[in-house]
Parts: sequence; structure tokens; C-alpha cells
Amino acid sequence: MIVLGVDPGLTRCGVGVIEAGASRRLSFVHVDVVRSDPEQSQDLRLLTIYQGLTAALDRFSPDVVSIERVFAQSNHNTVLGTAQAAGLAMLGAAQRGIPVALHTPTEAKMAVTGNGQADKIQVQRMVARILGLNQLPKPADAADALAQAICHALRPAGAIQGGEREEHLTQAQRQWAEASAKYGKHRGVQRDM
Amino acid sequence: MIVLGVDPGLTRCGVGVIEAGASRRLSFVHVDVVRSDPEQSQDLRLLTIYQGLTAALDRFSPDVVSIERVFAQSNHNTVLGTAQAAGLAMLGAAQRGIPVALHTPTEAKMAVTGNGQADKIQVQRMVARILGLNQLPKPADAADALAQAICHALRPAGAIQGGEREEHLTQAQRQWAEASAKYGKHRGVQRDM
Repeated sequence: MIVLGVDPGLTRCGVGVIEAGASRRLSFVHVDVVRSDPEQSQDLRLLTIYQGLTAALDRFSPDVVSIERVFAQSNHNTVLGTAQAAGLAMLGAAQRGIPVALHTPTEAKMAVTGNGQADKIQVQRMVARILGLNQLPKPADAADALAQAICHALRPAGAIQGGEREEHLTQAQRQWAEASAKYGKHRGVQRDM
Repeated sequence: MIVLGVDPGLTRCGVGVIEAGASRRLSFVHVDVVRSDPEQSQDLRLLTIYQGLTAALDRFSPDVVSIERVFAQSNHNTVLGTAQAAGLAMLGAAQRGIPVALHTPTEAKMAVTGNGQADKIQVQRMVARILGLNQLPKPADAADALAQAICHALRPAGAIQGGEREEHLTQAQRQWAEASAKYGKHRGVQRDM
């Protein structure tokens, strides 16, 4: 299964592609950061990000696209551009009939480091270790996109597909999803690796 | 000049089209509300909104698309979906080489009623009067989309194109733009009609 992870952003949008094989063995396929010029108008920047994302979707034909869930509570002034970039990734996937999964940053950090509060360098180190890379994925957006993909590949089976399909979860999976939703952003949830 | 106004939203996205003729005479062309099903996953909802917006762009070939500017300070929980819908409108315009203008809700209310704090019914009444409609445009999203288009057609020449091109403004226009940006959202700015 090919998983394409997206760390959405209007200035830098991370794209990380992995392959999940038998017994959840993960291997690295590709990583890139799509950039747009902050000097350009917002419509042209969104077009650049969309073109970069859809080029990656067409090149790697992923089975699923895993996108970082954006929160309105993030009151830094880039949150709307981040949400728009995430929306473009969802649009590109939906246009191609590719399922979308949304995972919080905390879930992604938990999945790769076992700690939802892990810092950037920890995430980079563990992403490199899990995927057998010889060097740390940089910049942080690249590592975060790979962490999104890893998070989805290692998730409890059936959890949080498309952000809306939680009716298919078992009770335990639903509890995990609810805990993630409740504590995911600000406190972090420990999860057995 | 054909102006297509957008009142962005994920559940209801207003689209209003007007023609601005000689001496700023405005006439009604079209109004519609693109809707997505809240029961669907977010990726499919965004696809539905995108398809509706791009169908309108292709049908009316506007000279400019005027989109309501979304603010991160709006802390209601629909702001991210609203921002994403606005992003899709910008993407659709950029893909077709159509310039994009962004105007705040306050600017649109000022343009049609002379009062940036006008309520929904005032906006509906004045939109109907300006465009010579026999009935009020409903729902509010439809009236707001027409008000966006009217706002752009009546703007000070050259103001706030694409949200980023303010370097072309005269000093007076820049002051108006700065005042709008500063006071636009929460206080309203009176403007001579």
C-alpha cells in the first residue's frame, strides 16, 4: 500500500510517500516540499501548491492520502493558508477517487516517537530510523509529511478514515479516536508502539 | 464587465453574477447557492463546492472574481471550511487566468447599504434595489454573493486587486484600503456613496 502524507502549508507544503508492505514493514519512496512565493497573490500561490500536490498524486498514485488535521484554535495568522492548502490536498485526492485520512500532529508524533509532544529533531530522527534513511529528512515539513504517512500506515485498522467514517470503528478504536480528538492537540496521548 | 461574487462556505456557498456597464450601471445576471451535504466526508464536500464554483466560472466567464475575505479571528468552528471554500474559488479563478479580488463583509455591506454594520435584511433589500430585482435574493448567502460583486464593481478604481496588489493604489486609495483592513471587520467604516 502506497501512503502519501501531506504537511499542509501555503509557503511550504510537505509531501512524503512511503510503501507499507507485509507485517507493516515501511519503506521510503519519496519526499519533497512544494513551495509558493510569498510575494505572489494568494490565488496564484494556491494554484502553485495545487499543481505540486496533484503532480505528486499523479506520479505516485497512492492508495490513501494522509493529511495533517488543521485546528481553528491555532491562532497564528497562517492557519487559514494552512487550512486552504489542506483543502487543496483533499480536493486533489477526491478528484482522483483516492481516500483521505486526517491525523492530528500529536497522533503523527505519537506514531513515530511514542510521544505526542516530541520536538522536531526527535520526529526527524525517528522518521529516518523507521524508514532506514542515511540522513535526517529536512526541512521539518518534509519529516512531518513522512510522519503523517507513517502514522496512517501504523494506525489501528480502520481508524479515522476521511475524518467522517468513524462509524466503522470497533469500540476500542472509537475510544482511541475520541481520546485523540479530545487530547490530541494540546496534551498528547501516549500510545503503545 | 462581468463580476462573479462569492460568499464562501462549505455547506452553502453563494455565487452572484452581475454586469457593470457604462457609468457603473449594474445589472443582474445570475445568483445561485452551491451546497454540500454535511453528512459527507470533507474531501467529497470540497469536491462538490469546487465543481459548482468552476461550473459557474465556465458558464459566465467573469472578468473578475470577488471573494469575501475570511478572517482567522472568526472563532466560530466553521471558519476553516469557509477558508477552504474561499481557497477553492481562488484556485478555480487562477486556473482560468481570472483576476481575484478580496473584500471584507464590512466593505460589501458599506458598498450596498452605506453602513458596514447593516443587517441581513438591509443587505437583501439594497441588493434587490440596486439590481432592480422584483424580490429579495434569498438565502442570505445569495444576497451576500451579489453584494460582493456589487462591492467590487463600485470600488475605488484599482483598489485591493488580488489582496496583494495594493502597490498600484493612489495615496487616498491606500488610506481607504488601510482603514478598511484596520477597521473593516469589527467596527465598520462609513463611506460616501
